[in-house]
Amino acid sequence: MARRILILNGPNLNLLGRREPGIYGSGTLADVEKACEALGAELGLETSCFQSNHEGELVDKLQEAGLNGIGVVFNPGAYSHTSIALRDAIAGSGADVVEVHISNIHARERFRHHSRITAVCRGMICGLGTEGYLLAIRALAAHLENNPQG
Amino acid sequence: MARRILILNGPNLNLLGRREPGIYGSGTLADVEKACEALGAELGLETSCFQSNHEGELVDKLQEAGLNGIGVVFNPGAYSHTSIALRDAIAGSGADVVEVHISNIHARERFRHHSRITAVCRGMICGLGTEGYLLAIRALAAHLENNPQG
Amino acid sequence: MARRILILNGPNLNLLGRREPGIYGSGTLADVEKACEALGAELGLETSCFQSNHEGELVDKLQEAGLNGIGVVFNPGAYSHTSIALRDAIAGSGADVVEVHISNIHARERFRHHSRITAVCRGMICGLGTEGYLLAIRALAAHLENNPQG
Amino acid sequence: MARRILILNGPNLNLLGRREPGIYGSGTLADVEKACEALGAELGLETSCFQSNHEGELVDKLQEAGLNGIGVVFNPGAYSHTSIALRDAIAGSGADVVEVHISNIHARERFRHHSRITAVCRGMICGLGTEGYLLAIRALAAHLENNPQG
Amino acid sequence: MARRILILNGPNLNLLGRREPGIYGSGTLADVEKACEALGAELGLETSCFQSNHEGELVDKLQEAGLNGIGVVFNPGAYSHTSIALRDAIAGSGADVVEVHISNIHARERFRHHSRITAVCRGMICGLGTEGYLLAIRALAAHLENNPQG
Amino acid sequence: MARRILILNGPNLNLLGRREPGIYGSGTLADVEKACEALGAELGLETSCFQSNHEGELVDKLQEAGLNGIGVVFNPGAYSHTSIALRDAIAGSGADVVEVHISNIHARERFRHHSRITAVCRGMICGLGTEGYLLAIRALAAHLENNPQG
Amino acid sequence: MARRILILNGPNLNLLGRREPGIYGSGTLADVEKACEALGAELGLETSCFQSNHEGELVDKLQEAGLNGIGVVFNPGAYSHTSIALRDAIAGSGADVVEVHISNIHARERFRHHSRITAVCRGMICGLGTEGYLLAIRALAAHLENNPQG
Amino acid sequence: MARRILILNGPNLNLLGRREPGIYGSGTLADVEKACEALGAELGLETSCFQSNHEGELVDKLQEAGLNGIGVVFNPGAYSHTSIALRDAIAGSGADVVEVHISNIHARERFRHHSRITAVCRGMICGLGTEGYLLAIRALAAHLENNPQG
Amino acid sequence: MARRILILNGPNLNLLGRREPGIYGSGTLADVEKACEALGAELGLETSCFQSNHEGELVDKLQEAGLNGIGVVFNPGAYSHTSIALRDAIAGSGADVVEVHISNIHARERFRHHSRITAVCRGMICGLGTEGYLLAIRALAAHLENNPQG
Amino acid sequence: MARRILILNGPNLNLLGRREPGIYGSGTLADVEKACEALGAELGLETSCFQSNHEGELVDKLQEAGLNGIGVVFNPGAYSHTSIALRDAIAGSGADVVEVHISNIHARERFRHHSRITAVCRGMICGLGTEGYLLAIRALAAHLENNPQG
Amino acid sequence: MARRILILNGPNLNLLGRREPGIYGSGTLADVEKACEALGAELGLETSCFQSNHEGELVDKLQEAGLNGIGVVFNPGAYSHTSIALRDAIAGSGADVVEVHISNIHARERFRHHSRITAVCRGMICGLGTEGYLLAIRALAAHLENNPQG
Amino acid sequence: MARRILILNGPNLNLLGRREPGIYGSGTLADVEKACEALGAELGLETSCFQSNHEGELVDKLQEAGLNGIGVVFNPGAYSHTSIALRDAIAGSGADVVEVHISNIHARERFRHHSRITAVCRGMICGLGTEGYLLAIRALAAHLENNPQG
Repeated sequence: MARRILILNGPNLNLLGRREPGIYGSGTLADVEKACEALGAELGLETSCFQSNHEGELVDKLQEAGLNGIGVVFNPGAYSHTSIALRDAIAGSGADVVEVHISNIHARERFRHHSRITAVCRGMICGLGTEGYLLAIRALAAHLENNPQG
Repeated sequence: MARRILILNGPNLNLLGRREPGIYGSGTLADVEKACEALGAELGLETSCFQSNHEGELVDKLQEAGLNGIGVVFNPGAYSHTSIALRDAIAGSGADVVEVHISNIHARERFRHHSRITAVCRGMICGLGTEGYLLAIRALAAHLENNPQG
Repeated sequence: MARRILILNGPNLNLLGRREPGIYGSGTLADVEKACEALGAELGLETSCFQSNHEGELVDKLQEAGLNGIGVVFNPGAYSHTSIALRDAIAGSGADVVEVHISNIHARERFRHHSRITAVCRGMICGLGTEGYLLAIRALAAHLENNPQG
Repeated sequence: MARRILILNGPNLNLLGRREPGIYGSGTLADVEKACEALGAELGLETSCFQSNHEGELVDKLQEAGLNGIGVVFNPGAYSHTSIALRDAIAGSGADVVEVHISNIHARERFRHHSRITAVCRGMICGLGTEGYLLAIRALAAHLENNPQG
Repeated sequence: MARRILILNGPNLNLLGRREPGIYGSGTLADVEKACEALGAELGLETSCFQSNHEGELVDKLQEAGLNGIGVVFNPGAYSHTSIALRDAIAGSGADVVEVHISNIHARERFRHHSRITAVCRGMICGLGTEGYLLAIRALAAHLENNPQG
Repeated sequence: MARRILILNGPNLNLLGRREPGIYGSGTLADVEKACEALGAELGLETSCFQSNHEGELVDKLQEAGLNGIGVVFNPGAYSHTSIALRDAIAGSGADVVEVHISNIHARERFRHHSRITAVCRGMICGLGTEGYLLAIRALAAHLENNPQG
Repeated sequence: MARRILILNGPNLNLLGRREPGIYGSGTLADVEKACEALGAELGLETSCFQSNHEGELVDKLQEAGLNGIGVVFNPGAYSHTSIALRDAIAGSGADVVEVHISNIHARERFRHHSRITAVCRGMICGLGTEGYLLAIRALAAHLENNPQG
Repeated sequence: MARRILILNGPNLNLLGRREPGIYGSGTLADVEKACEALGAELGLETSCFQSNHEGELVDKLQEAGLNGIGVVFNPGAYSHTSIALRDAIAGSGADVVEVHISNIHARERFRHHSRITAVCRGMICGLGTEGYLLAIRALAAHLENNPQG
Repeated sequence: MARRILILNGPNLNLLGRREPGIYGSGTLADVEKACEALGAELGLETSCFQSNHEGELVDKLQEAGLNGIGVVFNPGAYSHTSIALRDAIAGSGADVVEVHISNIHARERFRHHSRITAVCRGMICGLGTEGYLLAIRALAAHLENNPQG
Repeated sequence: MARRILILNGPNLNLLGRREPGIYGSGTLADVEKACEALGAELGLETSCFQSNHEGELVDKLQEAGLNGIGVVFNPGAYSHTSIALRDAIAGSGADVVEVHISNIHARERFRHHSRITAVCRGMICGLGTEGYLLAIRALAAHLENNPQG
Repeated sequence: MARRILILNGPNLNLLGRREPGIYGSGTLADVEKACEALGAELGLETSCFQSNHEGELVDKLQEAGLNGIGVVFNPGAYSHTSIALRDAIAGSGADVVEVHISNIHARERFRHHSRITAVCRGMICGLGTEGYLLAIRALAAHLENNPQG
Repeated sequence: MARRILILNGPNLNLLGRREPGIYGSGTLADVEKACEALGAELGLETSCFQSNHEGELVDKLQEAGLNGIGVVFNPGAYSHTSIALRDAIAGSGADVVEVHISNIHARERFRHHSRITAVCRGMICGLGTEGYLLAIRALAAHLENNPQG
């Protein structure tokens, strides 16, 4: 049976491609999701995608993923910096999450430097553009290979 | 006419029973809510329950309760530590709230020690597990008995 | 074709008229919205109103407005002081927003002095009561007139 | 065989009803103890009460309770803020203690904000008046029911 | 009898239309004053206009307005940040002033963030371009309507 | 009916006469108490004496005195510097206390300079040896004479 | 031969009874001195009184007392807080001084909390009103009795 | 005549063997006391043992030992850190005390680092387990041998 | 030939009598100037008066006075606290200035405590009401008399 | 009946005319006092003069003036900066004092900038030479005229 | 056509030659202006001169120069340190300004060290006496030569 | 004609020989003065001596000495540390003073380290015992020899 992963995007990432292309690139979220699905297929992973601007819906999805053993590639957007609820959703449901940021959050405004989420994720990738999503998928796939029951 | 109370739970409390049972116990949220309703019935209170991972839905419910004289047993979860909107909802609607935390928040990570909500609540119970909800219902019932027009 | 504007109110502004009338006046949110719609009609603007206590719904609405060229009169309430997601929604969607505060936020509690939103809005009006909404509508109308393609 | 609990009150709580009734209410300690005993009987608990102004007697009682599996409802009064011996007595004897404060200690003089005891108790109830004792008894009873060998 | 208002502009505002049009727009001060007078006439207000680069002349005008019950729309320009004399003129004569800034002063150099004047004004409008003057006139007119003897 | 006073001595004052006579003099506590009783009799006061090394017993005695209108001459010894319980006992029972120290506490180790008790006493006498007790009795007697119902 | 004592008052104590009676009581200095003389006579002491607003005269008197074995009851008034000369006069002449303050100096303006004199006195009485002078006389008398050659 | 020593234990040391054996070892207080008595006999010392959770009783015992020339092996437990009264009891009665702590108090919680007692003892032993009591007895015996009248 | 003096008043002093009479008294500036002229005449001084809200006009007048040997009675109002130009005008022209403040500036808001002008004036009078102007005139007259060529 | 005033001078003012004439002028104290008496006579005031280098004598005189309703023109000299006793004498006797300094104390050594006296005086004149005394007399006379019973 | 320059002098520079010649030299402003005009003629520049003590008039002149392409040699005097309005006049009108100070402002009083003007000027010359004006004219001439359309 | 000198001693120096001989030696003030007179005679100086505990009398004497060209050897005692009046007396009268301290004031209590007098004296000698007086006389004599008109 194929393993499942979720590409989860937080607030304002539905704007990808229209917003500050100098920072975020010109691909749309649909482009990114299509590329993720293609790579997932190539790696034998059942891939689904979800984006929401609602902190609560992201909490819902993270819980669902954690409870069903679905790996998560998660770009929490602006909620990275303020949400303890997202942190608790990951820790509480045991979700296996790789955090992704398209831009280098440490090289931007001071209020974007600290992520409250990272400590409960397996890893984090930032500043590598939308390629970061693909790298995160590969990281999950590699982990699964090494931990087949994992 | 029966007095009404609301058992209101914030983000990730729907995970109860699956998440860190060493801290939160093994009962599910449904178990807790059933016990609350049973106790409410026993005490002659019309009891309803609501959980949401969405800050805004919690604001809605607190307002509704405050404007309709419904007592609230409220576990704000992670939003305790960050939300001015919840605070304004309680203060603005005049809601009568007893704050409950299942675990002893003073014995956990530093960022869980301060609640922005407590100052506008009538009292607080922490560390007594899910029993804390029942105790808070009794506190509301006792208060109603002593202040029948209250 | 008539230009469109959105009157967007954040958390607890549905309590208007019931909450601290010394600060916020005695008109209800419905009164304010009716007056906004009347003025919009008079100015040839298609006016809609929306209030939510949900940060995510406010993000949705701001994006939708930004992407569809709908001007926004926005009172972010308590989220002014905590939300980076709202800030990113405005900046990312290119929404044309006039921030409104009924009271003079600089004359209240210290934690209400700083707005995380203002820097990405076109302008701000504070301390002029609910009249501030009508002034903001006129500001948008005037801008549209001067920038018909804008 | 009935399970046993101890209602333990520290220094100056024998003054209840005579001292600052605006803060502590007008019931005497005897009233509180009678109510505790009645509730204990109702819940099938063998209830005893003890008050002392002596730190050492409180240490003795906590040890005795801890070593004999007697649950404790403990209001440590002024010793909350200064006694390491009480803390060690609880931790050392494994006493199962619910700390109670009649008033909200976080809303009084600064030197009353910190309790040296809470970190080694199972939970804490504050700000709910003398009703807090009854709630603490129920918390112990519920715990015993769920952990009959406990 | 028509009520009177004064459109008062401080230093360098006579450069409007020639100076940093990206910040201040391309209309001249004469354009702004003509628009103000037209709107004033429409609202039944007797409107006069005055600009000066001289702090003292601004003090003169504010006093005269305060002592004769003339409402003031005042853009203090650079003097906002340094003048105690303007502050005393408003407070001392009881002038009813709405402060206007064409640009968003909070989004510019740090030394423009604080206004010594705002605390003694009724309200403030910033960042809405020269339209801000017209809005301020409406705010005064609305206030007069609601407070006919005021 | 004779008015009553209590001569109350705290920890280690039973060592009087044996301990550091250079500081405390050579009279024993019994000598002091006898002298106090004699003076009390002379002044028409019913005088009793009590010494304890136990903080709790001192709390008991202060409460009893406060609740029965017995004036107290109190040397709190080392507890002066640490006890909130003694402070609460005086304030809570309304005891009329004159604090006495045999030595000049301001001329000894730094940790003896501050008394937590003085702020809730009527006055303080220090450095006058055991004569200080007699003076305190006279102060109480003089106060009673001037305030016969007091 | 009768032993001698001096009742020595510093600056502004001649205003007693006319100045801030809420703090100092309504008796005049003459009243206080008469009472001191009467008590001195009763105790077999030759009592003289002196008041001066002059620092130097107070130094003279303290020296004279110290060199002639005259006990001193001394209220240094405002000089308590500033005079090193008075301190040296006491220490240098070996004067046996009991410092008296009518009010509780620890409960007044910060600059009155520290006395430069106390450390070289035998004891201090504060907060017991003008009765404090009489108590100080008794302290001296008692000391003389116990140390007849002293 | 045999010299006498007292093995004195403070609060919670009656819990030895049941409490945190990782820190305190598994021997009970009775075991320790038996070993002490055996060693005492071997060294020709008359040995008695006493434990109390009451600060006041420890004060009593220290005084009695000091006044009767009985050497003391004293483990003050938690009172080490807060009690000035115990300090005064030792200093005041001239007791010859060797302070013992089973664990290394400097390697535990910050509030256990400072002992208020040590400064008035002849020496201190900590961190050597219950063996520390035996070492202290030997220290007292060695001292007595060298100072037969001591 | 009569000697000349100038009564020079700075910003907002033309409001005298209408502004905060509790601080500034109820006389108008005209009243004050008339009284100054009358006294000047009586003292044989040619007296002129000038008030301006303009810093530059005050600079002009001070220079003119300094270069023509006209004594100045100067109340600099709010410019006291901010103007280096006025300071330089006095120092540079050698003007003989007596600074006057109607109220005691040391007893008002902190930003009014420091005058940048005083150090270059001959003297200062504060807290004596509008009488202060007359006293300053007399000071100038007396100086002229004593220094006829001066 | 003529009102009375006292010209009171502190330490070293008897050196007037001999000491640093560049700062203090060349008139002697006798000249100043004669001028004061002449002006007093002219204004119908009974004028007396007193100078002392003794702090205590100044305290005496201030008290006497305060208790007899005698207005005081007071130059405290060097005692301005150190004396609490002079401050208490003015406040305690209710003396009506105008403080005078011949030189501008704000333009001299730092330790002369602060006066402990001013806060309890009605006003202050500095830097106007010995003329300052005459001005202060006029200020007192003017005050008496306006407040005949005052 | 000859290029035009303006020699603009701020407050108190009309006093040149009469004021502190040690700092400013003995030439008058007329001397300086004549020398500037001579050098201007020599360099083929049409030179005009203006001095004012009024901040507003300097703003006026700077605006006029900026709008007409007239180069400015500007000594802002004391306004250097306080005026944002002058800064805005230069920046807003695009004036090409060389700032001149006769003395070395960095070597004088602390409050003369910072100029708010310099940042918007092309350059600054200080401490070179009145020669600085001539150097500034040469700088402007050199610039024009290199940038003939400039 | 012989030159004159004054040996002037301040507060408590009349106690010499009776006070802390370890610090001050055992000679009396009379001994010191006799030695000074002998040395004065030997050096051809007319020597007088004066001691006072009164700050004011010392001011008087210093003034008299200064005005009559009498050299002064001055030990100001405790007034060294507090008196600006003595400082002014020396500076104002032009007295030629050599300050003497018997002990090393810099090696005693902190409050004795700073002398307010030294800055206006010709020199200072401290820590050399009563010999210091003699050295000071020699210093004055040497100075006179070198400056016969001095």
